[in-house]
Amino acid sequence: MALCTFSFPAQVKAIPERSTLFSSHYFCGTDLLCQSLPTHNKKVQQAKKRPRSSVCASLSESGEYHSQRPPTPLLDTINYPIHMKNLSIKELKQLSDELRSDVIFNVSKTGGHLGSSLGVVELTVALHYVFNAPQDKILWDVGHQSYPHKILTGRRDKMHTMRQTNGLAGFTKRSESEFDCFGTGHSSTTISAGLGMAVGRDLKGGKNNVVAVIGDGAMTAGQAYEAMNNAGYLDSDMIVILNDNKQVSLPTANLDGPIPPVGALSSALSRIQSNRPLRELREVAKGVTKQLGGPVHELAAKVDEYARGMISGSGSTLFEELGLYYIGPVDGHNVDDLITILKEVKSAQTTGPVLIHVITEKGRGYPYAERAADKYHGVVKFDPSTGKQFKSKTPTQSYTTYFAEALIAEAEADKDVVAIHAAMGGGTGLNLFLRRFPTRCFDVGIAEQHAVTFAAGLACEGLKPFCAIYSSFLQRAYDQVVHDVDLQKLPVRFAMDRAGLVGADGPTHCGAFDVTFMACLPNMVVMAPSDEAELFHMVATAAAIDDRPSCFRYPRGNGIGVQLPPGNKGIPLEVGKGRVLIEGERVALLGYGSAVQSCLAAAALVEPHGLKMTVADARFCKPLDHALIRSLAKSHEVVITVEEGSIGGFGSHVAQFMALDGLLDEKLQWRPIVLPDRYIDHGSPIDQMVDAGLTPAHIAATVFNILGQTREALAMMSS
Amino acid sequence: MALCTFSFPAQVKAIPERSTLFSSHYFCGTDLLCQSLPTHNKKVQQAKKRPRSSVCASLSESGEYHSQRPPTPLLDTINYPIHMKNLSIKELKQLSDELRSDVIFNVSKTGGHLGSSLGVVELTVALHYVFNAPQDKILWDVGHQSYPHKILTGRRDKMHTMRQTNGLAGFTKRSESEFDCFGTGHSSTTISAGLGMAVGRDLKGGKNNVVAVIGDGAMTAGQAYEAMNNAGYLDSDMIVILNDNKQVSLPTANLDGPIPPVGALSSALSRIQSNRPLRELREVAKGVTKQLGGPVHELAAKVDEYARGMISGSGSTLFEELGLYYIGPVDGHNVDDLITILKEVKSAQTTGPVLIHVITEKGRGYPYAERAADKYHGVVKFDPSTGKQFKSKTPTQSYTTYFAEALIAEAEADKDVVAIHAAMGGGTGLNLFLRRFPTRCFDVGIAEQHAVTFAAGLACEGLKPFCAIYSSFLQRAYDQVVHDVDLQKLPVRFAMDRAGLVGADGPTHCGAFDVTFMACLPNMVVMAPSDEAELFHMVATAAAIDDRPSCFRYPRGNGIGVQLPPGNKGIPLEVGKGRVLIEGERVALLGYGSAVQSCLAAAALVEPHGLKMTVADARFCKPLDHALIRSLAKSHEVVITVEEGSIGGFGSHVAQFMALDGLLDEKLQWRPIVLPDRYIDHGSPIDQMVDAGLTPAHIAATVFNILGQTREALAMMSS
Repeated sequence: MALCTFSFPAQVKAIPERSTLFSSHYFCGTDLLCQSLPTHNKKVQQAKKRPRSSVCASLSESGEYHSQRPPTPLLDTINYPIHMKNLSIKELKQLSDELRSDVIFNVSKTGGHLGSSLGVVELTVALHYVFNAPQDKILWDVGHQSYPHKILTGRRDKMHTMRQTNGLAGFTKRSESEFDCFGTGHSSTTISAGLGMAVGRDLKGGKNNVVAVIGDGAMTAGQAYEAMNNAGYLDSDMIVILNDNKQVSLPTANLDGPIPPVGALSSALSRIQSNRPLRELREVAKGVTKQLGGPVHELAAKVDEYARGMISGSGSTLFEELGLYYIGPVDGHNVDDLITILKEVKSAQTTGPVLIHVITEKGRGYPYAERAADKYHGVVKFDPSTGKQFKSKTPTQSYTTYFAEALIAEAEADKDVVAIHAAMGGGTGLNLFLRRFPTRCFDVGIAEQHAVTFAAGLACEGLKPFCAIYSSFLQRAYDQVVHDVDLQKLPVRFAMDRAGLVGADGPTHCGAFDVTFMACLPNMVVMAPSDEAELFHMVATAAAIDDRPSCFRYPRGNGIGVQLPPGNKGIPLEVGKGRVLIEGERVALLGYGSAVQSCLAAAALVEPHGLKMTVADARFCKPLDHALIRSLAKSHEVVITVEEGSIGGFGSHVAQFMALDGLLDEKLQWRPIVLPDRYIDHGSPIDQMVDAGLTPAHIAATVFNILGQTREALAMMSS
Repeated sequence: MALCTFSFPAQVKAIPERSTLFSSHYFCGTDLLCQSLPTHNKKVQQAKKRPRSSVCASLSESGEYHSQRPPTPLLDTINYPIHMKNLSIKELKQLSDELRSDVIFNVSKTGGHLGSSLGVVELTVALHYVFNAPQDKILWDVGHQSYPHKILTGRRDKMHTMRQTNGLAGFTKRSESEFDCFGTGHSSTTISAGLGMAVGRDLKGGKNNVVAVIGDGAMTAGQAYEAMNNAGYLDSDMIVILNDNKQVSLPTANLDGPIPPVGALSSALSRIQSNRPLRELREVAKGVTKQLGGPVHELAAKVDEYARGMISGSGSTLFEELGLYYIGPVDGHNVDDLITILKEVKSAQTTGPVLIHVITEKGRGYPYAERAADKYHGVVKFDPSTGKQFKSKTPTQSYTTYFAEALIAEAEADKDVVAIHAAMGGGTGLNLFLRRFPTRCFDVGIAEQHAVTFAAGLACEGLKPFCAIYSSFLQRAYDQVVHDVDLQKLPVRFAMDRAGLVGADGPTHCGAFDVTFMACLPNMVVMAPSDEAELFHMVATAAAIDDRPSCFRYPRGNGIGVQLPPGNKGIPLEVGKGRVLIEGERVALLGYGSAVQSCLAAAALVEPHGLKMTVADARFCKPLDHALIRSLAKSHEVVITVEEGSIGGFGSHVAQFMALDGLLDEKLQWRPIVLPDRYIDHGSPIDQMVDAGLTPAHIAATVFNILGQTREALAMMSS
């Protein structure tokens, strides 16, 4: 426990002013000579005007945080890792402090992932000091902790664009920088990818290092275990850094004690003993760990003892049994120790896979984030001096919250309703459910596969499980949805949050494919609410459907402000029945889910031009409302299906029905509006909708184009 | 090692004749009184006529196996587990022997999974003796070892229908029997499902036991790890039986020594020590393990020592660290020991999850299977007396073999070509590749998720990875395909074997959805060969596509006999170009993949009726051949897309293009022929095709129906 409870950091002393290149965009390459560029420019002048009492970190002498950009004289000289190579350990510590203050300042202006980035400041500095990226590969699992890495790898001048349209991505991204050697967003992929890079290097005769940094939370996912098992077997040289910060979202976060939720697969002890030249490295490691002071030393010594026991056959450590050489735990905020250990590991020859267990603190160095790591995991803009987040007041709540309220209402009425999520109690709203029904809510860790089959087991026993998983994360449990739920026709309900475009998180989190991959399953009921009241009804519908699986998708963001059902209790809809919202003529817009609102808006845009369109809300993609579609097809010239999802989904189902029913054989014009066949970059929701061609104006323009009214179509797009 | 090398079983002695009810279909319920039913019937007479030298197992006194059904006098009295409850240990041993001989005999007549079923005979007897299914839940992971279970649970009289049309399924299946509490087929799901059932039981106030039997191979999958982690956390009472038979398909199978490839996730040691009443059970277990003789005893004592070490904090066992109470290893062929331990575990109160590590031998008791566990994992019909499998000679090889040959040819020409599979070296043909390129073939274990991201890492380093994964198993790596490969546009090649219907393995293994879930991905090239020569070309095409991911699907079964390209080396196709095979009129059949052959056959059926249809081979679902489709649409009255896949796939992509191109606006009739929107049960390939409505006759009838020629349509279906 001692390792994980850090006291509030002591105030750092003011350092002498030095080269204070404020903005890093003067460095366009990796040329060290750039550091001698003139510093006289406006921004630098501004920086120099700041009170001299400022310290290198954002903490002032009075213990307060600045709301203005803190001075960062040393960081200002570092644009790429090569600029760090000649720094002393003392300077690297200062660099870490400045980097931390820069992260706090930047994120306070843009929002983003704060806590995880603050936790790895020293680790980032040490890694880029010891290793030579991009030749050496450094992989950041999930990638939300990569802000310090981005600052040190040529992107500091773009940090103010973080997660914004055309700005930096909130995760690592190969197309953004050669220093981002693997794109991330979803958890637990980097040991697999790093192992592939290590094996690839060996096959190609390369000599570079591969380092995968992965959190303890990410270690709960099966893929990490699969990868470690394979890494131990293949025995390629690579370094896994377990960044152990006791992820708050996980059940294990409730446990006391310094031992983290980590994974291990036993391989043969004999293989470890005989096949690898471990002893040399072990001796080195012993030397290193002995140097660590205080509780770190004690723990390190203990681990070393474990390891020695393992070698002699009487005990084991988990990672050793996996075939990874274990070093740790190491104080992840001690740059000196980190560098010493990383250098030793780097210099050791043919070690096979090594795991360095690093203890860090989420939110480290920013007291508000340290105290509430969960609330500062991802933040909106905030005031650095007070930690207060600028949460905008909205008249409606998020769909996520409405879902939770709807489910609570169902659970009040039916004791068999239970809820499952995969380490996303906040993100799915199920923490609200947990508070009300503590014994009926299950957080299984980052383990979507298990979550789904676990829910299938619950359904076998007559419970009514709701699995709340983001649309894009459900991809990770697709086989379980098919094989364990749909094939057996078990009544598991899937609440697919973050369906469609998701704004700042970008394409990794975009729920583009769920309608396509769920609606092809024979037994699945597939639905999507067009507003928050409909969401309440669909939660009730899913609760009522007890002879087969069902799912419903809903978007990121807030409700549109319609009246909620009495007592927040939905009323089950008739399965497979849509509804007509506006009776019109010539053109019928058949919307699915949130796209229905765009259809209504498009109808409003079009009406002043003398066209009153029909707008229908399909509600169900499966089973389709055949009567509704037949009626629309027979009484209109044009039917346009509209959805915020990929090809193969709602529109494809409507088209196939119309074809088989003969409705497409004559003059009817069908047009599908779907997400385009490319990934939409992160950005503001409206920018993304424009990029995707899914705004009401786009729909209206499509209508006029089909009708041959090109002038009106142009007007739609220019208004 | 001693535990795993069993000597050829000593000949069992002839036992006195007793009640020899030959067929179990006299027992229609669980009434024990049924055992007194008269035995005088024809079948019994037949059985009695057999030479008196026959023994209760299928082994004759001369050491040979019978080709005729062996006498099984005791098994004949057992139709449901309740009939076993009064048997003595000695009788249970005899029952095991008879059960084993019955499995060998049955599988010799039907083919199926032999080795795994033989390995769990004693375990099955012990489980059904100690526990009371179906109230107690017994889950068989993967389910291919469930034949003895099926025989003991009312299905013996249907064993001759195993894996046949309308016969028993080769896996457990909920709709088949209430004793099959969870359907299986894909690996590593049962701890998740069992945990769900255990939690469900607790929420419902039930008292039944839950037992999940899972192999060591299945333990390499991430889901098993996720489930154990969660089981340890939730601490519900359930029993996991690790059936450790050193799965030959796994890399770890090459290891010597009794320590199997098993998985474990560390939780807090302190939690285990303080939170659960372990000591009482531990004492019991110590007593039990001490009773075991010989090497079992030694190992058990050793494990007990490990466990004690863990409790005192100086060591650990993997499963204990996961929060599972570990007992073992136990001799899985010793009914006595198994029953003793299972009884103790059953009688212990509130133990939390318990893992019993059972050592078994795949193929146990049938020397041919013992000697070559891989070759007798799944078998065709064979002669029990010689072990010789009746493999039919075919003029062509399987698509699987052609794929391997094609890939070897590519790898000969390009040293960057590497291959990855997930514990399916035989099933994917990559064992052939391994033999030729031992350093360029990677078996990652049952770990599809890792396989795909590992391949992505290899692609980052400039290698050309081919991931060979069955279509239905790729579902388990869908997120990795989306997030790690397609989103990053990495050139990973997916060879999707077993696409479409798969015959005897049934719906769990049916590759129905791959076109749908792959073709919606923006960067993926999606193709399917119409014959084996095309497969060679598509392997070459995939090797040549190095700027984006690609995939190709091919069916189970053999090639159709077309000429292979010279040197078995394919020539890259033009990406996105299909071809017209027959120029015809009025109706165009646009086939995708193996369905092209059905289209050609349909055209041949139709032609005598005066209609010459166009038949085209799309080759690519993505990118589509726009020119080809436009041409077909403009010069025909009807376009029929034909594929052996679900809705949302090829047909949907063609329809969307035609709609956007205006091709559907006029009189063109488009009809999609896809797999029906239901799961097709196991059966012969032709029965499945008939069931699915995908035979040439179905296609031909569809054509005539659309043209209004109902008489010809009827003729097609009656011929």
